[in-house]
Amino acid sequence: MFPLDQWYVAGFSWELKDRPVARTLLNRNVVMFRTGEGVAAALEDRCCHKSLPLSCGTVERRGVRCGYHGLLFAPDGACLEVPGQERIPTKAKVKSYVLSEKDSILWIWMPREEGGQPTHEAPDYWVHRDPRYTFKGDVFHYDAPYQLIHDNLLDLSHLGYVHLKTIGGNAAVHMNAELKVEASGDQVRVLRYMPESAPPPTYLDAWPFKGKIDRWQEVEFNVSHLNIWTGGADAGTEDMRDPQRGGFHMRGFHAITPETDTTAHYMWTMASNSHPERPDVSGVVFDQTALTFEEDKVVIEAQYRNILRHPGAPQVDIHVDVGPNRARRVIERLARA
Amino acid sequence: MFPLDQWYVAGFSWELKDRPVARTLLNRNVVMFRTGEGVAAALEDRCCHKSLPLSCGTVERRGVRCGYHGLLFAPDGACLEVPGQERIPTKAKVKSYVLSEKDSILWIWMPREEGGQPTHEAPDYWVHRDPRYTFKGDVFHYDAPYQLIHDNLLDLSHLGYVHLKTIGGNAAVHMNAELKVEASGDQVRVLRYMPESAPPPTYLDAWPFKGKIDRWQEVEFNVSHLNIWTGGADAGTEDMRDPQRGGFHMRGFHAITPETDTTAHYMWTMASNSHPERPDVSGVVFDQTALTFEEDKVVIEAQYRNILRHPGAPQVDIHVDVGPNRARRVIERLARA
Amino acid sequence: MFPLDQWYVAGFSWELKDRPVARTLLNRNVVMFRTGEGVAAALEDRCCHKSLPLSCGTVERRGVRCGYHGLLFAPDGACLEVPGQERIPTKAKVKSYVLSEKDSILWIWMPREEGGQPTHEAPDYWVHRDPRYTFKGDVFHYDAPYQLIHDNLLDLSHLGYVHLKTIGGNAAVHMNAELKVEASGDQVRVLRYMPESAPPPTYLDAWPFKGKIDRWQEVEFNVSHLNIWTGGADAGTEDMRDPQRGGFHMRGFHAITPETDTTAHYMWTMASNSHPERPDVSGVVFDQTALTFEEDKVVIEAQYRNILRHPGAPQVDIHVDVGPNRARRVIERLARA
Repeated sequence: MFPLDQWYVAGFSWELKDRPVARTLLNRNVVMFRTGEGVAAALEDRCCHKSLPLSCGTVERRGVRCGYHGLLFAPDGACLEVPGQERIPTKAKVKSYVLSEKDSILWIWMPREEGGQPTHEAPDYWVHRDPRYTFKGDVFHYDAPYQLIHDNLLDLSHLGYVHLKTIGGNAAVHMNAELKVEASGDQVRVLRYMPESAPPPTYLDAWPFKGKIDRWQEVEFNVSHLNIWTGGADAGTEDMRDPQRGGFHMRGFHAITPETDTTAHYMWTMASNSHPERPDVSGVVFDQTALTFEEDKVVIEAQYRNILRHPGAPQVDIHVDVGPNRARRVIERLARA
Repeated sequence: MFPLDQWYVAGFSWELKDRPVARTLLNRNVVMFRTGEGVAAALEDRCCHKSLPLSCGTVERRGVRCGYHGLLFAPDGACLEVPGQERIPTKAKVKSYVLSEKDSILWIWMPREEGGQPTHEAPDYWVHRDPRYTFKGDVFHYDAPYQLIHDNLLDLSHLGYVHLKTIGGNAAVHMNAELKVEASGDQVRVLRYMPESAPPPTYLDAWPFKGKIDRWQEVEFNVSHLNIWTGGADAGTEDMRDPQRGGFHMRGFHAITPETDTTAHYMWTMASNSHPERPDVSGVVFDQTALTFEEDKVVIEAQYRNILRHPGAPQVDIHVDVGPNRARRVIERLARA
Repeated sequence: MFPLDQWYVAGFSWELKDRPVARTLLNRNVVMFRTGEGVAAALEDRCCHKSLPLSCGTVERRGVRCGYHGLLFAPDGACLEVPGQERIPTKAKVKSYVLSEKDSILWIWMPREEGGQPTHEAPDYWVHRDPRYTFKGDVFHYDAPYQLIHDNLLDLSHLGYVHLKTIGGNAAVHMNAELKVEASGDQVRVLRYMPESAPPPTYLDAWPFKGKIDRWQEVEFNVSHLNIWTGGADAGTEDMRDPQRGGFHMRGFHAITPETDTTAHYMWTMASNSHPERPDVSGVVFDQTALTFEEDKVVIEAQYRNILRHPGAPQVDIHVDVGPNRARRVIERLARA
């Protein structure tokens, strides 16, 4: 059960090249493509004739053509052509989805009722437009339900055990960080501050820190995606709780879109700023973030397999679970609505 | 549900060498072997002692010997020997099937009632005996139910989209070809003629055509197999509707035998004639046909996976579906009988 | 259904090094580890916080630490530490198993009721302590239920068909060997003697036999493991039925521990003596035994897949089945208890 009548991330603009892209989203099989005329579109991934996935077909000027008998479909799912036959049968059409392309992100509206239209605009993501930042992204696949990934991202205390080699650093510092959880509406925010702490390896690779740093981790949970603002500044030089602080910034966009009830897509970008005295470090930051996510994937998939092996086994809560539990209540409330 | 009290193709003569061959046919697990005395036989693939597949055993002069404790079984399933024990238990026997070897084809009788005997002779296939043709064959496996392959073969309009590189050629020509569907008894015939058309790549590799050709595609559906006679002659030189026409001939034997309810064996041979001025081209024709079938396999398996993902989703018929739909009605009638 | 309130073999001492070992035993997911203080322990393989397998964690001086948020557990399952939190929740503990380490074997008590304690000591295995023998062992995995492996080991007549290249030799000799089956309590013994027989390849590699040999095969079935004493002496030089006989000895320890209802662990060691005139041959004997077990695995897994394909199909008993059937009755009686 997922929250519906919501925008979800379906992918990124750069994925739509000269071939259709198949992706299952919230148990629906979707084909996305960009027509020769430049329109990004999303349809049910099934030809209405013999059920071949339209993603096995080809992209043309006006739409996508099936790879079996050549039926051509427009971005709105209308059949434009049945080769060898003049009349187009009335029932020859496929379901379409509303796709909104903004800031290099493909947002798809997932309606509660078939054909339901968006009630509001797709989210804005200003970081992708801000010239101070360079970003790069990727799509990872998880054999685990999406909420286990929410749990992971809302509880960064795991950095000390799972990500020692990249962004982790000292476990005790992470576990004892100052922690604040705020919730309002459908948002949950987990704020962690680690003053006077040692910069982790990735930070040292990216920025010429002089010694200890004041470090922040601000996680903002939304139903469709999380914004994670992390970074650090030389100890004592900035107010680390001020959104206008200077220093080194990693701004992560983390869209966890359910694929099925038990699997998920992790669609993310990582943006960072570069120190004036250093060349662009965004490649290094991206690569190390990708490594970090691979580490998470191993842990979360092992966790999920083990949950399946022990159905109904109880879990004991500890101090770090406040944020994740708040987010679960938001999802539960919206999914029931 | 399959038509029973029917002959089906179980394999080809050249497959029975010095080892037993395991093959599941219509959900029955069968072992085939040729005894040292030359008898081709088919038994249930299970030793009656400890259930090891007999296909894990060895072929001997009089039958097949189990690879676990050495029980020996005759072509009719009788146990001939229990090593270390004089008396052979009354119940020590395995089920046998009637196997008829003709024209290099192994036909198996699939009875409605256990032990039921054939009511007629296995089909004749004269092409394998005709000195004008050279043939070669193979067995492909499909992760798709057998009727999706019938559909494919009875509707050659897909050649223009799926087989561009081999036997396809211009999509519009294929889609607009003259089409005639005939049915009588348990047979369905789909006849397509494409006068004055461009020869496709495989034809040009095989025959010295001078320019445009008159091209024919004659598909004959039978419950156990399809005969597909295709070919072409220089435009205006032959009556392309006359079975005695000259020119280049590809005579395909296509036996689609269900493996299970959801998988199938595609057992086929391709025979062709060679032009007097050219060396034997049957190897080229066979290789390109195999490539064509690989293309079909990709499409049909993708189609089937997508049908499974969308249970109950409706399909819209178009003009090319007349032949396939007729054949489906034949299968349905016989399967219910 | 398995006999409970029994010791089973969980592994071997040499497996517990610096990392935890995960193993499913009788459908229970177990993690085994040796603490820095040297204690061998077995716990349920699930952290009580977020369900990550503890086998993904690390071994420390006092116990095993979870790889997600760092909870530390003692050999008895008590939580010793929750990083970042002073109070340890009362419910923070994991199930523990009684593990007894003897003669390089890890015995685990599988209680009928949760928390049930052993009613007797774990079995003794003197061969591992006897200086006349050198041994080596391994753990194999079978995609087949454990009783099919019992059947195989209690009926060595299959050696003539399955193990021709190693310990098999002439099939007729094996099938016609003198055979005696004894049962007492929960034990079954199958005794086979083959006087004046040709030594098989492995025997010739290991011992300087002069010609024909008197050969013995003594299989002792226990619920948790089988002892298989085999060997041979130059014909006429020893009383092959006397436990004190000389000659070449292969002493096999075969613990077949169910993994799940349909899969099993085969944990075995092979001990042998060396002839005074020859260097240590235990490596050769071990390698050829491993090869033999690989042959058995192929046969038994093929047998099991075929049993699954033919549910309810009857099996016919022959003379070699007396021992296996006795053992099945022991298991059935104990599992019902």
